[in-house]
Amino acid sequence: MNIILAEPGEVDVRRLTLTDHRAKHIVKVLQAEVGDRVRVGLIDGAMGSGTISAIRKKFPFSVEMELDLCDQPKALPFLDLILALPRPIMLKRILSQVTALGVGTIHLINANRVEKSFWEAGILQRKEYHSHLLHGLEQAVDTRLPDIRLHPQFKPFVEDFIPSLAGNYRHLLLAHPTGGRLLGDVIDSGSGRIALAVGPEGGWVDYEVKKFQEQGFCCCTIGKRILKVDTAVIALHAGISVLREVRQPLK
Amino acid sequence: MNIILAEPGEVDVRRLTLTDHRAKHIVKVLQAEVGDRVRVGLIDGAMGSGTISAIRKKFPFSVEMELDLCDQPKALPFLDLILALPRPIMLKRILSQVTALGVGTIHLINANRVEKSFWEAGILQRKEYHSHLLHGLEQAVDTRLPDIRLHPQFKPFVEDFIPSLAGNYRHLLLAHPTGGRLLGDVIDSGSGRIALAVGPEGGWVDYEVKKFQEQGFCCCTIGKRILKVDTAVIALHAGISVLREVRQPLK
Repeated sequence: MNIILAEPGEVDVRRLTLTDHRAKHIVKVLQAEVGDRVRVGLIDGAMGSGTISAIRKKFPFSVEMELDLCDQPKALPFLDLILALPRPIMLKRILSQVTALGVGTIHLINANRVEKSFWEAGILQRKEYHSHLLHGLEQAVDTRLPDIRLHPQFKPFVEDFIPSLAGNYRHLLLAHPTGGRLLGDVIDSGSGRIALAVGPEGGWVDYEVKKFQEQGFCCCTIGKRILKVDTAVIALHAGISVLREVRQPLK
Repeated sequence: MNIILAEPGEVDVRRLTLTDHRAKHIVKVLQAEVGDRVRVGLIDGAMGSGTISAIRKKFPFSVEMELDLCDQPKALPFLDLILALPRPIMLKRILSQVTALGVGTIHLINANRVEKSFWEAGILQRKEYHSHLLHGLEQAVDTRLPDIRLHPQFKPFVEDFIPSLAGNYRHLLLAHPTGGRLLGDVIDSGSGRIALAVGPEGGWVDYEVKKFQEQGFCCCTIGKRILKVDTAVIALHAGISVLREVRQPLK
């Protein structure tokens, strides 16, 4: 936990009182004292510090602090992810890892090789996935929650929804290990947001590739090695980020 | 399992007989029949195919095949990893993910913020970590096992061991979120191998950074967001790989 996150509704004028795992973290891990400042942010809001005015170091832990939140939230990440719904245990890890890396919206979509049962997983409830997103933000010192959208039907997503937002993007990328262009041949020096679609274990079927291509998606790959979805998502995100950086050195 | 891996000692002339989880995989997942060819490789050896000559589709499963292994093993990956020993559950995941991405040697080393108890973990026994490496190879269709080396003492590793192999590398990189150069400013167009050192949760302490720098390591970062070690290792690997690719386009 590299930043303490609070809901705006938890703050009373500038005062924040914590009595849960966050208070425990401040006591046990940060070993903070009255007068110490800790990094604090409001979910989907500003960041800054909290100066501890009272602390109870025994169970039940509690911490009271005075907030000074003068830093704007980070910029919207440049990448939105379109992800064929992975199995729940993998989805949990991807949600927190990709939130830590920075992502605007995560569209979870259906695909031929997505197991139907995955759509009944508890992790698709907001109250379940929310904590994984928070872990990612707490890790990366960010306050901006990614937007999660569920699209249990492939065809309406790709035929109706994609056209409605394709204009927002500089690049529409479809990760596809075979037959694609290398990332380095695709990402140019232009600015603008990027939509990245990553398939299920076993990959997209030909029909799905064709439908994405009809909407302007470009097949791309980070190499010949076949990766699991959780590895591929991070590797693609990092590869695209590095390429943007070297091709827009003044940004 | 994108390739069936076997120990060279399991092969009798060109015949391979399987009766374990690999036989089950061929029956249940690949749903292969007599006459079908499946992708096969020998651990630390050649790759190719096996033509199924006999199959038992009920428990206990068994598969007999005739091998045709005419493809050379993949080239030695360009990257060696020096990793401050992470907690066992994270190490398991890193071992298979980084093997899938491709790595030559993984040096697991001590550092100030490595918990002492991690050195007693079962996963540090070859018979335990071997299966995680195999998973990575089976995923990425590779046969070359990474070499795992344990260095429970930091100082001899950095003062004595590093100098003995530093000459093998084009780049010696120390991942360090603060004060480093961006990867894109470090990786040049030269060929040659790369050693990447990644710290523990909480990072390297100043003394460790200084010791690595004395040996010629360059501090580098993939951005300002603080990542967990498992995310950082993949992101760094992918970032370095993409940069090598775009800076050596003819390779």
